[in-house]
Amino acid sequence: MTEPFGTDIWGKFIPLAEWGPLVDEYLQDPAKGPIVNIAPPEVDDREYDAIFIGGGAAGRFGSAFLRARGGRQLVIDKWPFLGGSCPHEACVPHHVFSEAARMLDYARLMSNKYWCEDYENVKKRASILAIRDGFLRSRGAAHGIMNFQSKEQLNMEYVLNAEAKVVEAAGPDGLFGVEAAGRIFKAKNLVLAIGARPTAPDVPGTGLKGVVNFATMLDPEWLDFEPNRCVVIGGGKTAIEYGSFFQATGCSTTILTRSQLMRTKGLIHVDEDMRLWVENAMKRRGIDIHDNSEPVSIDGVDRVSGVTYRDMTTHEQFTVECDMVFLGTGETPLSDQFATLGLDLDAKGHILVDKTMQTSVPGVYACGDMIPGAREMFKARKSGVTAARNIMGEYTEYEHENYPDFLHSTYEVVWTGLSEEEARQQYSNVVTIKLPPDGVSREDSALPVGDGSMFFALEGMGEAGLLKSVIDGDSRKILGLQFVAFGVRNAFQYLDYLIHKWPGGFTADQMADVNELFLNEGYPQLHRLRVGGALRDL
Amino acid sequence: MTEPFGTDIWGKFIPLAEWGPLVDEYLQDPAKGPIVNIAPPEVDDREYDAIFIGGGAAGRFGSAFLRARGGRQLVIDKWPFLGGSCPHEACVPHHVFSEAARMLDYARLMSNKYWCEDYENVKKRASILAIRDGFLRSRGAAHGIMNFQSKEQLNMEYVLNAEAKVVEAAGPDGLFGVEAAGRIFKAKNLVLAIGARPTAPDVPGTGLKGVVNFATMLDPEWLDFEPNRCVVIGGGKTAIEYGSFFQATGCSTTILTRSQLMRTKGLIHVDEDMRLWVENAMKRRGIDIHDNSEPVSIDGVDRVSGVTYRDMTTHEQFTVECDMVFLGTGETPLSDQFATLGLDLDAKGHILVDKTMQTSVPGVYACGDMIPGAREMFKARKSGVTAARNIMGEYTEYEHENYPDFLHSTYEVVWTGLSEEEARQQYSNVVTIKLPPDGVSREDSALPVGDGSMFFALEGMGEAGLLKSVIDGDSRKILGLQFVAFGVRNAFQYLDYLIHKWPGGFTADQMADVNELFLNEGYPQLHRLRVGGALRDL
Repeated sequence: MTEPFGTDIWGKFIPLAEWGPLVDEYLQDPAKGPIVNIAPPEVDDREYDAIFIGGGAAGRFGSAFLRARGGRQLVIDKWPFLGGSCPHEACVPHHVFSEAARMLDYARLMSNKYWCEDYENVKKRASILAIRDGFLRSRGAAHGIMNFQSKEQLNMEYVLNAEAKVVEAAGPDGLFGVEAAGRIFKAKNLVLAIGARPTAPDVPGTGLKGVVNFATMLDPEWLDFEPNRCVVIGGGKTAIEYGSFFQATGCSTTILTRSQLMRTKGLIHVDEDMRLWVENAMKRRGIDIHDNSEPVSIDGVDRVSGVTYRDMTTHEQFTVECDMVFLGTGETPLSDQFATLGLDLDAKGHILVDKTMQTSVPGVYACGDMIPGAREMFKARKSGVTAARNIMGEYTEYEHENYPDFLHSTYEVVWTGLSEEEARQQYSNVVTIKLPPDGVSREDSALPVGDGSMFFALEGMGEAGLLKSVIDGDSRKILGLQFVAFGVRNAFQYLDYLIHKWPGGFTADQMADVNELFLNEGYPQLHRLRVGGALRDL
Repeated sequence: MTEPFGTDIWGKFIPLAEWGPLVDEYLQDPAKGPIVNIAPPEVDDREYDAIFIGGGAAGRFGSAFLRARGGRQLVIDKWPFLGGSCPHEACVPHHVFSEAARMLDYARLMSNKYWCEDYENVKKRASILAIRDGFLRSRGAAHGIMNFQSKEQLNMEYVLNAEAKVVEAAGPDGLFGVEAAGRIFKAKNLVLAIGARPTAPDVPGTGLKGVVNFATMLDPEWLDFEPNRCVVIGGGKTAIEYGSFFQATGCSTTILTRSQLMRTKGLIHVDEDMRLWVENAMKRRGIDIHDNSEPVSIDGVDRVSGVTYRDMTTHEQFTVECDMVFLGTGETPLSDQFATLGLDLDAKGHILVDKTMQTSVPGVYACGDMIPGAREMFKARKSGVTAARNIMGEYTEYEHENYPDFLHSTYEVVWTGLSEEEARQQYSNVVTIKLPPDGVSREDSALPVGDGSMFFALEGMGEAGLLKSVIDGDSRKILGLQFVAFGVRNAFQYLDYLIHKWPGGFTADQMADVNELFLNEGYPQLHRLRVGGALRDL
């Protein structure tokens, strides 16, 4: 029962600084076997209340919560680290690339000015591979803190670097059985949280060398050349974010999207003013954007040479030459892996759950990207916590219809609540507050100018961002907020809470009562200037 | 009564783009006379409800509010623009310089890496004068939007580029009289809002060439050389912000402060962990910080050559050589100008007001930096609005004891509520949540890593910032929050509101319920990991 299997780290303190290199060793040599942090029976001989299969945002947060509630959990992950795809290949590298893109915007803007070299005319290019490799070198730190924190601070039990397989679905003892690392673990409940994989469009050529997605572009053996001309397929977050990065490095980028940019199914409550600001800023930076365009084929012999697409209105076909294609066409949940459980799925393969995160099979819960809805960290984490609470006997519902959202172009683009268009469908007296205000051109406005926009304003305005507030002029409640700028994303976590959770709604007058810091990149002072009388568009 | 005086712009639309150059013309040639935007009697023949003397944050916001409430206001300012010192010489240039400082940190960090030149070893210096002059070139835009918005969007009446003098304090008609631009204006109330001026320490040599403050360093005739070695006198916000900027440009900087850094009287609720993080980060960047040190003399013949200071414990004296001295030693309210009104003042010259912002003289209100308390934009704006409300018959009190605060080192340093030390004096079960956590060294922690910190984490950690939350473990209420990072300042506007205004207090459990955006630079997810059970230090 306690026979050794893999590297047993129970009770052994591994300093944070050692975790990063250790994880890298396991990534380079997966055959090193499992990393096992399990309490021996003399410490804890209880059955597991739940086994979390997948230790990403959903499984890790659910585990932490269940443990803190006094339960016993085990989390099993195929990777040698907790945290899932986020630190490994998704949110973290995406943020690194977006930060690089923003800095490269600066390098262009500041070319030959003040202390800056002539980037625009002399250097011109940044290496995508070098930035990618920089991320890979440092990734261990992001991995390491997950393992460290989960073990030393949150007291979780885990088996890493091991595939988990459900072998007994509610067996004769009423327990679920999961095989991992050559051993069977038993638990009262299962929480499925292994996420999703990127989807390729159904066109020829997706296997050609030079065709990448956010995961495969991190593989030095797969993306082993410096691209000069890229076509991005997709119009949602991933397409916008990676397309903006490629263009910023000097790799000329074309985006092909069936819909308009930001009008893909995964994005909701997208305000048209905001959308246009983002799209126009991308065009100003030289990105070639074709909407209403569906890919026909990815062309090339053994490596990609172009993409043929069709204008969905005229049905004309065009070909764009390129040496890299980036697929930003969504993800598919990895629910196949649990086919034997006979769970109810939706048409896209998401596992259907009730509001407690329980699937159609009692005792089996699913979370994160396996269930329907937007792919957001907080959904993953909250759904994991909701499963944990219900497993521990605390009935809890979770829905995530209303949530704040964001993406990076080279700006932070953030929104919560209703778009102006949505608000006008529901309210008869919708008022907006905007910077730049209506009637003032972007080029003439130095506002809103948050931290990080000052030099844009100094060296040529029109890049100071867009701030918008959508208000019901009768009740004076704030219905929606949109912001394109720098340094504003973090604030939207709390703005979202205020407008959705404040008892009775959060009004423009309350916003005007907020103590602002600095001047014009927040909402409080702008609302304060307006709330003295009846609200009107300004 | 309607005889022309100065340039009458009433009813004439001046596009935003024209305002900036126009203000610059008036700044270069103040003798051009007043800019007058006053409704003729056929449009509005009411007495003024209030004349706001000073059109900075307090006077402008108060005016906008009074006007929106249906009253009639006039604002008079000596400068040819509204907005006061903030866009002209205070907050805006300070932010420009802090942004430059942050970018220069990057230039050093990224020297010879990725797309970046070898700034650290080859270029080494940035020109303070060039950055200053860049701000001066673009300042018109900041000025312009104030005049435009106030006229076209907020319908305010104003006289600019004109000194105001109170000539009749509640005359026989019961009205106050104010002379400006050769004319007498009458009003039922006065609102005094002309702010403060920088104070020099009482030591010899403050008039030497090379001794500057935040205002005089903007004068190209006064600061007409590139400084190489600077001594900053002071330990508060201005000293830290400008000292960080000078050092970042490559101008070696020494800070002399009587107290510890951030322990000056103007800063309250300063948490020691946060203070140490800021101080140590400044030292890592090479700033020479001497606390417990009082200046004895600023030395030199006609230009400054050094500063002599005394260690306040040992009484030993030392001299630091330098070619520039920056005085960051506070400000004094300009209340002398209203001496004839016989207002009650405090020992420092602040005008004493009640909670309605009324002074000891009925009908005379004072706002902004003229009254006691921290010099914060929101205080100025809210105090102006409070005066306006009371003048319009709406009894309103305003106190600003609890407020969020921030400064820039080269980071954003933000805090609200109680420091840990203050919390422990009031509560017996104080719990803190920190990143990096206790027991993990800064160098080993890649967290918290907000937008803008990714490359710091990539290229050598330990610069990812500090996040802290101070909680009452019994009631689970959040008592204080501290953050040093990038992109977090804006959020504290709303965090401050949540922890101070949420009915009954804002708990760690509510924070855990916030929908976070991205991963680790916000509080929600970190609290979510902790709130499953009893709260404890983590």
